[in-house]
Amino acid sequence: MTQNIYDTAEFFEAYSQMARSVHGLDGAPEWPALRALIPPLQGRRVVDLGCGFGWFCRWAQAQGASEILGLDVSQNMLDRARGGTPASAAAGGIVYQRADLEQLQLPPAAYDLAYSSLTLHYIERLAELFATVHQALVPGGHFVFSAEHPIYTAPASPAFVQDASGRRMWPLNQYAVQGPRTTDWLAKGVIKQHRTLGAYLNLLIQTGFTITHVQEWAPTQEQLAAQPALAEERDRPMMVLVAATR
Amino acid sequence: MTQNIYDTAEFFEAYSQMARSVHGLDGAPEWPALRALIPPLQGRRVVDLGCGFGWFCRWAQAQGASEILGLDVSQNMLDRARGGTPASAAAGGIVYQRADLEQLQLPPAAYDLAYSSLTLHYIERLAELFATVHQALVPGGHFVFSAEHPIYTAPASPAFVQDASGRRMWPLNQYAVQGPRTTDWLAKGVIKQHRTLGAYLNLLIQTGFTITHVQEWAPTQEQLAAQPALAEERDRPMMVLVAATR
Repeated sequence: MTQNIYDTAEFFEAYSQMARSVHGLDGAPEWPALRALIPPLQGRRVVDLGCGFGWFCRWAQAQGASEILGLDVSQNMLDRARGGTPASAAAGGIVYQRADLEQLQLPPAAYDLAYSSLTLHYIERLAELFATVHQALVPGGHFVFSAEHPIYTAPASPAFVQDASGRRMWPLNQYAVQGPRTTDWLAKGVIKQHRTLGAYLNLLIQTGFTITHVQEWAPTQEQLAAQPALAEERDRPMMVLVAATR
Repeated sequence: MTQNIYDTAEFFEAYSQMARSVHGLDGAPEWPALRALIPPLQGRRVVDLGCGFGWFCRWAQAQGASEILGLDVSQNMLDRARGGTPASAAAGGIVYQRADLEQLQLPPAAYDLAYSSLTLHYIERLAELFATVHQALVPGGHFVFSAEHPIYTAPASPAFVQDASGRRMWPLNQYAVQGPRTTDWLAKGVIKQHRTLGAYLNLLIQTGFTITHVQEWAPTQEQLAAQPALAEERDRPMMVLVAATR
């Protein structure tokens, strides 16, 4: 099973206090860019891989999606997701289900959109997951995801440093060395799977997807003005947003 | 016109001494990976954007291409390319022509392959060039290119540094800040156009291309054993190889 760091108390507490946990999609600065990649959902069927607290599932519901499956490996996350959903909403089509994405099975041609936010960089068996998603989409269906950018996951010491002149720099190395990276993000010993961006894209292509958009996320001028700390994201992308179609 | 650094004596002299200039394709460590992206050329028409000394044009000729157009902005390069081609070869279908890729025009559906090696990161009007290439290819035609990787072109100070423990790191910053970069590579004041990898790919997609492969080049184990200095390329990619079809 995928490392289930979200069900450790230390990690979950820290994660629960992040802006994106407290404020939902509007607390995630990449959300406007990610939302722009999502097709109209009225009457559509959606699966969310790594649904967390269910913010996206509820948003999809508000967009008129007819059927929404939220999957997560973390019981903590699912409990919170269910708690945030009024009984009437559950009746309105959201189903939350615990699932190990390393072993996922989905019915064929059952979804119009597969969505995943900041989850895929934890997955070891990504080729298998992409194949599962591909067959679960209708022809022409959409796969939209964000993941931690390989520039962000690659380094031996993933933290900004300053050069002699005080200029901020991201100490990139071992970019081409794919495989696990252990970091101390929110809790000690979080394991991520580093892949090059090319590896993500070629895996999609080999699975049969057509790539329609690749965005190495950076803040807009308006976001920078409102949140100056986001300037770091212009120096090195933390996230990549990808859209593809079956 | 594109900056024509290749026609300054200092740059041309230094460039002429690089392994890839002296030894041709076999002096370029990325060539085996790039070659693997090229479709069979027997009887096909080829255009090479930034042909340099003509190494690729002559290779395409040896592969049986029926018609080969080598374009370059540098008269020095073209003179050398023509010098390297026996009269019989010119008769065999290679035409070298001086052209500013910023203003390029090509006939419609005239080529089966458009190729470009380490040239596109000099181009300002890349959308226009991609559109020109797209219409010049037959439907199903191939566009294969290498360019300097955005990780390589981005930094304010594009040279490896060492951290406190002596670990090599690439000082990445201003990745999202697209536009010109002035470096002192082989000569002072070489201007490159930095774009994110996403920008290259989205521009291809918007032009109508389908992306078929994206490779952030790194050496194989065999190459590393033969040329240990290539280990740097595993820490940060210098080149990206892209294949797309019309």
